[in-house]
Amino acid sequence: MATIWNGQWRGLRLGVELRALERDGGSTLRVGSPEGDREWLRFDCFAKNPHWHLDPSGHNVVQPLDERGDVVGEVFEQIRSGGVPLLERAGAPPSLIERFAQAEGADPPTLLRDAERAMRHRPAILDELDIRTLRSRRSEKWHTYPADILPAWVAEMDFSVAAPIQAELRRFTESGDVGYPIRLADTGLPEVFCDRMRERFDWSPEPERVEILSEVVQGMYLAIEAYSEPGQGIAVQTPIYPPFLASVRDTKRRLVENRMRVDGDRIEFDFDALANAVDTNTRLLFFCNPHNPSGRVFSREELERIAVIAIEHDLIVVSDEIHGDLLHDGREHIPLATLGIEIAKRTVTLTSASKAFNTPGLRCAIAHFGDAALQRRFNTVLPRHVRGGIGLFGLYASIAAWRWAQPWLDEVRPFLEANRDFAEQALAERIPEIRFHRPEATYLAWLDCRALECTGSPAAHFMRHGQVALSEGRSFGEGWEGYVRLNFATSRAILTEVIDRMAKALGR
Amino acid sequence: MATIWNGQWRGLRLGVELRALERDGGSTLRVGSPEGDREWLRFDCFAKNPHWHLDPSGHNVVQPLDERGDVVGEVFEQIRSGGVPLLERAGAPPSLIERFAQAEGADPPTLLRDAERAMRHRPAILDELDIRTLRSRRSEKWHTYPADILPAWVAEMDFSVAAPIQAELRRFTESGDVGYPIRLADTGLPEVFCDRMRERFDWSPEPERVEILSEVVQGMYLAIEAYSEPGQGIAVQTPIYPPFLASVRDTKRRLVENRMRVDGDRIEFDFDALANAVDTNTRLLFFCNPHNPSGRVFSREELERIAVIAIEHDLIVVSDEIHGDLLHDGREHIPLATLGIEIAKRTVTLTSASKAFNTPGLRCAIAHFGDAALQRRFNTVLPRHVRGGIGLFGLYASIAAWRWAQPWLDEVRPFLEANRDFAEQALAERIPEIRFHRPEATYLAWLDCRALECTGSPAAHFMRHGQVALSEGRSFGEGWEGYVRLNFATSRAILTEVIDRMAKALGR
Repeated sequence: MATIWNGQWRGLRLGVELRALERDGGSTLRVGSPEGDREWLRFDCFAKNPHWHLDPSGHNVVQPLDERGDVVGEVFEQIRSGGVPLLERAGAPPSLIERFAQAEGADPPTLLRDAERAMRHRPAILDELDIRTLRSRRSEKWHTYPADILPAWVAEMDFSVAAPIQAELRRFTESGDVGYPIRLADTGLPEVFCDRMRERFDWSPEPERVEILSEVVQGMYLAIEAYSEPGQGIAVQTPIYPPFLASVRDTKRRLVENRMRVDGDRIEFDFDALANAVDTNTRLLFFCNPHNPSGRVFSREELERIAVIAIEHDLIVVSDEIHGDLLHDGREHIPLATLGIEIAKRTVTLTSASKAFNTPGLRCAIAHFGDAALQRRFNTVLPRHVRGGIGLFGLYASIAAWRWAQPWLDEVRPFLEANRDFAEQALAERIPEIRFHRPEATYLAWLDCRALECTGSPAAHFMRHGQVALSEGRSFGEGWEGYVRLNFATSRAILTEVIDRMAKALGR
Repeated sequence: MATIWNGQWRGLRLGVELRALERDGGSTLRVGSPEGDREWLRFDCFAKNPHWHLDPSGHNVVQPLDERGDVVGEVFEQIRSGGVPLLERAGAPPSLIERFAQAEGADPPTLLRDAERAMRHRPAILDELDIRTLRSRRSEKWHTYPADILPAWVAEMDFSVAAPIQAELRRFTESGDVGYPIRLADTGLPEVFCDRMRERFDWSPEPERVEILSEVVQGMYLAIEAYSEPGQGIAVQTPIYPPFLASVRDTKRRLVENRMRVDGDRIEFDFDALANAVDTNTRLLFFCNPHNPSGRVFSREELERIAVIAIEHDLIVVSDEIHGDLLHDGREHIPLATLGIEIAKRTVTLTSASKAFNTPGLRCAIAHFGDAALQRRFNTVLPRHVRGGIGLFGLYASIAAWRWAQPWLDEVRPFLEANRDFAEQALAERIPEIRFHRPEATYLAWLDCRALECTGSPAAHFMRHGQVALSEGRSFGEGWEGYVRLNFATSRAILTEVIDRMAKALGR
């Protein structure tokens, strides 16, 4: 029995435990006296036979919970709305019930939310990965190369999803409830997204300004269609996540390349180069923060300079912030749209729960518009239905992730940070010629391998001689051929093996 | 122990049983002598601890099967590729092994496929639906109206999905394997679709002519964008599934309405009216066969007349054949593209496993092009990425449905046919004023309620006075206001209640 959370709510003590029983287990919520000497209610949200106890330490009446639905959600609904009669039935003293009734609304609304998150949480499995299980996956990462190649390329994590997400997938799977979804706006996802942005980034977007898409890349293409014409310019900072470049090329727009500056170990935005490159026929600025592949997190000052350039040149900004939940070293993500009304009005923010919560195969993303006219243009340039529908699993996994899975992410993020530090250290020892641009966010490291002077590309060299798959530098833009991108979101053992293979490829 | 399938394979007897043990169960494959007096191998593909027996009636060596993967698939892989050494280890007589080795390739390839389908099959649950479970669904059908309204509208079935589909959803869910999917074409879905068309409809489309979409409606919009300009005409037979009309309206094309003729109890295609309505500025013919909402299945003669009109007027045909697996009374679906090369070349066939296999919330559909140029135009009019990605669950559920779930559909289809007959009979007795256009396919009945002379629409009347939700006739086209569409894909008990409520609404 491990207590993972406790708190005071309306004069009562709430305690959340994770319990593993012989053939059952799950989370338990205890509701008792503030002194902890008497328990009035206990809710055992177990996988099998979930049930609750009235007056567990007294006459202990046990009743089942409805296991078909969302058991934890129903428990919280019950204590939220029916606390007084429950306490009366449990035989709690009138004075305690009186205090409880009077304290309605006195606690911060986050209190029960945090208790509920704890009830839905299960420890993340990060370092105990089984390579055979990973190899049996059907994902692109594990399925593209033969079994002797160790993949460390495409940007997904090797960890399984958080328990609240898995619980949602399981509810649909076990009930066979896979009918037509309700209207996207009615699923609650826009509100959950906005709540999340407020909670995490102190940003208060409006649900009406949200469009639900299948993926961030879809949003990039739709934005190009909406806000520019063939031949017009789109400014892109390279190196960059390859679809930025492909989208410009596929739509016959003009790439206004804005190469980042390498300054020792730092990769910096080149503001002057951007201001010079943008001409009157440039319509869009594609931006990526945190930046993929460099892992840079742009500071408020940097963001302000970008905003000034966008405003001065009357650019619409498409800001990919999908890595915003994965900042290291205590950094805080600043959504571009929070900088002020002028920049917000011209910003389309693209994001998704799929990166931080590792559900890219479920296909669900968000576009947020800082302005109604911007959104209208996005929605009318092409009929909405060409976008296709969004699958139930993507929709409800995103809701579960953003609403409930933060405790899981609170375990994952520091694990990634530690893996980054490990990779930096190990590479410095084993292959000191590689320049490690220490990522401030993401689980991707952008490695300058030029000093290795490989024949052919470094990624091809590591693949051929080390049987390890990294992302090719050249796919991130011209002039970056000497780089590779390393994905370190895996167990320490596998990451060690990746680095061993890289070293082996160089005969070390 | 119920034997659900048996057959002779390379001189051996294969038997498939469904077994329910006390705390376990699943399907068993027995491989034995043709006389049935000796068993050499037995594979118990149970939910827990799947295992297999070597020489089960002799020295009976038991070994585990790998439960993480696709257990049934691995068993068939094993007997396909390793039959001889297995039989040797089991101690089968050399003469039998000799015969087995020589018979390689002698049986029809469908034999092991059918055995494997039987192994993956579980009886469909059709008539034992729990209304409380249905009401806890999050689908549009069960979530749009308050709990006192019984829904019989949107076109999905109240049944859970087939066991092989659920098994796929479960594999992804339990393994947390929800990373980026491999390239759509590499998933195998195009080949599975083509195999399915060949098996069911004697149609041999080519995998290269397949595009994977999110839904049939997305295909309609993309086809409009690809093959017509605003203001150009699109011929549509009304009454029709509402998105046909919405797509023409949303894209500012011109509706070339082709009203079907009601001839007594029959609804007929009006060929003369179509030929007259089509002008030189009409580019597309939208076609729906089996027809939603009328349930008509067009005969070869009717299809040929349509093909002639399309060819004569140089129309591209978008043929929605999503109900092609749900034909009653022994009818056989004829894909329009099988009529000849001339019509195939101008036909875009749209379909999905989601209708017959009841997975619309997973979002996966197919567009097939009878011609490479037709496909190229579809793929280049807009960048592919505006379509969005397809979720893993939709992709692999479609593969499982088309490859393995026919035995489930073989139970569902006759159940639907019997429900149709029941509804026809019950309505004739209770509300004889309603004209029942007996559907030849689908689980939808198009009811002519004009003789009821309701104030307002019949659907509104049934909703208000009977608390039953049917689809509004007017949404299927102008002039069809006096009709409703009834969905009869539910248990007999719920269907009875639907008809009771309809009768109640009329004071009967």
